[in-house]
Amino acid sequence: MDEPSFDTHPFDQAVALHPLPEGRWQARTWPQWANMVGPFGGITAAQALAAVLRDARRLGDPVSLTVNYCAALADGPFEIEAQPVRTNRSTQHWMLTLRQSGEVVMTGTAFTALRRDTWGADEQVMPEVGAPLDVPLPAGRGRVEWINRYEMRFVAGGFPAAWDGTDHGLSRTQLWMRDNPPRALDHASLAAFADIFFPRIWRRRATLVPIGTVSMTVYFHADAARMARTGSGYLLGQAQAQAFSGGYFDQTAQLWNEGGELLATTHQIVYYKE
Amino acid sequence: MDEPSFDTHPFDQAVALHPLPEGRWQARTWPQWANMVGPFGGITAAQALAAVLRDARRLGDPVSLTVNYCAALADGPFEIEAQPVRTNRSTQHWMLTLRQSGEVVMTGTAFTALRRDTWGADEQVMPEVGAPLDVPLPAGRGRVEWINRYEMRFVAGGFPAAWDGTDHGLSRTQLWMRDNPPRALDHASLAAFADIFFPRIWRRRATLVPIGTVSMTVYFHADAARMARTGSGYLLGQAQAQAFSGGYFDQTAQLWNEGGELLATTHQIVYYKE
Repeated sequence: MDEPSFDTHPFDQAVALHPLPEGRWQARTWPQWANMVGPFGGITAAQALAAVLRDARRLGDPVSLTVNYCAALADGPFEIEAQPVRTNRSTQHWMLTLRQSGEVVMTGTAFTALRRDTWGADEQVMPEVGAPLDVPLPAGRGRVEWINRYEMRFVAGGFPAAWDGTDHGLSRTQLWMRDNPPRALDHASLAAFADIFFPRIWRRRATLVPIGTVSMTVYFHADAARMARTGSGYLLGQAQAQAFSGGYFDQTAQLWNEGGELLATTHQIVYYKE
Repeated sequence: MDEPSFDTHPFDQAVALHPLPEGRWQARTWPQWANMVGPFGGITAAQALAAVLRDARRLGDPVSLTVNYCAALADGPFEIEAQPVRTNRSTQHWMLTLRQSGEVVMTGTAFTALRRDTWGADEQVMPEVGAPLDVPLPAGRGRVEWINRYEMRFVAGGFPAAWDGTDHGLSRTQLWMRDNPPRALDHASLAAFADIFFPRIWRRRATLVPIGTVSMTVYFHADAARMARTGSGYLLGQAQAQAFSGGYFDQTAQLWNEGGELLATTHQIVYYKE
């Protein structure tokens, strides 16, 4: 909650919440994470999850997170409330509410659990793509500040060569990505990565229409060992829309580590104006 | 809330909630919707959404719904609380809590909006499959009662021929389905259809391990016109897991009408024991 420091990673600055009584936490927006209006949605999702992660009442690790973006955050402080509403033997359900100036700006739910060693398999296998360092970095800085918090190397479906309104018929994007500067992956940063993809309708239609995510869900498949094997390495992200209809489109996405292990699957529904 | 009647469709019986003050509704479980333990999760999701749909404060139609299954419901009455926590010009965010005997049994969030006519496209196209009536019905009645509330015609990935523990390497199922008896589709019944798929791990591993859905999200792509064109016709459902890891697997699924229009995309994360 202090001023930016050269010693602290910008992600750690953002998720360093100040405890208040009864499951409430003081947070703030950061200029390093600014989007066109308000902060990058991924960092707000990470801050909401951080309130669960830091709670002494927490049982187990995040398995599922849903956040609903109710309004753009204004620059400045806001409050996160995270309450465990049902605790079972090895699982726990949380309700999340973010408020700013007395108004609800985000709602959400989270599910944590003690994971067990079981049979497992990644059925959604990582697409065959070139190595991260063989994929060039985009030229220039991002048009919004938060973009500079990540290193993004587009393998396929990057920004259209021309914003000419062509219907490309396909909204899929694949990219290698990591924190800038690099940082070891954890559940909070994985939640932020889930929201990193630029809007599918921009890719599909080559038009910069106004958009806004209204709800995002993240399912975490990475246990502690898989998280540790990932470290500060690259993630491969793949995102695609399934339907654009009546002012809303969905996005389904996967995130793997360099070893091809699936870390998270995520979905969101996004408002678009045309 | 009355006893079953021959005149009322079993789905309409289940979603006929009794109003209580302040956004609360009295509901109950129904023997027609019984699962192995508690009711079919899809009907509980539909009941939760019905509380939003029947609320006089509601703005617009459902775009997104997330429900979290906190505990099995016991047979009998329970209470649904649905509160609009943020209402914007054309959108509204809801928080949902279901309680039984003073305990939270489900949490959730919903997002409703006034939809607009926009450019649209279904990027996830319906797989080419035979017509519903060319696909045979399974023999015999379902092992649990709620199965009999639906007509299911498996096109691919039906129940394994033998429960012999073979790893089939693929968890995908495709089926034609409709209410039994037929009933015109609406948002509440579409939410129930989203949970109709039998557990992906049963298909993948040919083993009847204990499972339980812990969170489900539904994105609605059908506007009123698309819903009306669907009527009481068949839906094609397709479901597949992306990862099985540490006691939880995910499911991603699509539901189209007979005309090939995408009505909903849905995801869930499911506990499994091995």
